[in-house]
Amino acid sequence: MKKTTPFVLAALLAAAALPAAAQFQKAEDAIEYRQGALFMLGQHFGRIGAMANGRAPFDAKAATDNAEVVASLSKLPWAAFGEGTEKGHNTKAKPEVWKEQDKFKAAATKMQEEVAKLNTAARTGSLDQLKAAFGSTAQSCKACHDDFRAK
Amino acid sequence: MKKTTPFVLAALLAAAALPAAAQFQKAEDAIEYRQGALFMLGQHFGRIGAMANGRAPFDAKAATDNAEVVASLSKLPWAAFGEGTEKGHNTKAKPEVWKEQDKFKAAATKMQEEVAKLNTAARTGSLDQLKAAFGSTAQSCKACHDDFRAK
Repeated sequence: MKKTTPFVLAALLAAAALPAAAQFQKAEDAIEYRQGALFMLGQHFGRIGAMANGRAPFDAKAATDNAEVVASLSKLPWAAFGEGTEKGHNTKAKPEVWKEQDKFKAAATKMQEEVAKLNTAARTGSLDQLKAAFGSTAQSCKACHDDFRAK
Repeated sequence: MKKTTPFVLAALLAAAALPAAAQFQKAEDAIEYRQGALFMLGQHFGRIGAMANGRAPFDAKAATDNAEVVASLSKLPWAAFGEGTEKGHNTKAKPEVWKEQDKFKAAATKMQEEVAKLNTAARTGSLDQLKAAFGSTAQSCKACHDDFRAK
């Protein structure tokens, strides 16, 4: 019992953490969904990055609009990392997503917190604040990719 | 002049209609983006459909949550149908998307109007209202797919 209990607990935690997994009819759908969400996220975040890094002219309205879309999208991918979606559809998700659920969840939460700050920064209309918040948010993306996404 | 003017006008209209096309660095990115958005839209809309069609138990909160995501996502695909994104990345978009811009725009607008009504219906907590709004929204999806998406 001592040996199995942590596994049972982990399974229960995983089920609690990812209740929406069952919302996808096929594992492939879940993978395509999370890939779509993260790709879109990257596109909108990249537009903010272009402004933050001086590759595009700063446009406060565009920054705010993109930050809002980033905030909406940032909530969506996680439910699609349910059990049984470890393989297929060219997923780059590492096994650590499922082996280290707590760490993965924490990384996802951290990103959403940074995204909330990015939204606040975008609304100030200050390029300096946008740059700072963009940097912190980008670090939260990178940290999760380093640990949980194959190259 | 008489022959070229409509074309120039059409080009101007197209540019006005799709100003965000330039936001994508590559045509492939735009296509992947719109495919992701429409796939995600289909997933969330499908969950409402499952309730509307009795394949899943009615859950007013889930209906509202999904309708909200549908509303957010429904705004996103259109900017990714810019000029130069007619081919590649296994797009199923028909040439009519670009040849009949006004009709395509009208179809996209119609869908967003139906989605807004779907949101209102979901918030009432009435399954009957949800069913009716789901049906109208689904028709707006189908109409656009029939005309603008290859089988």
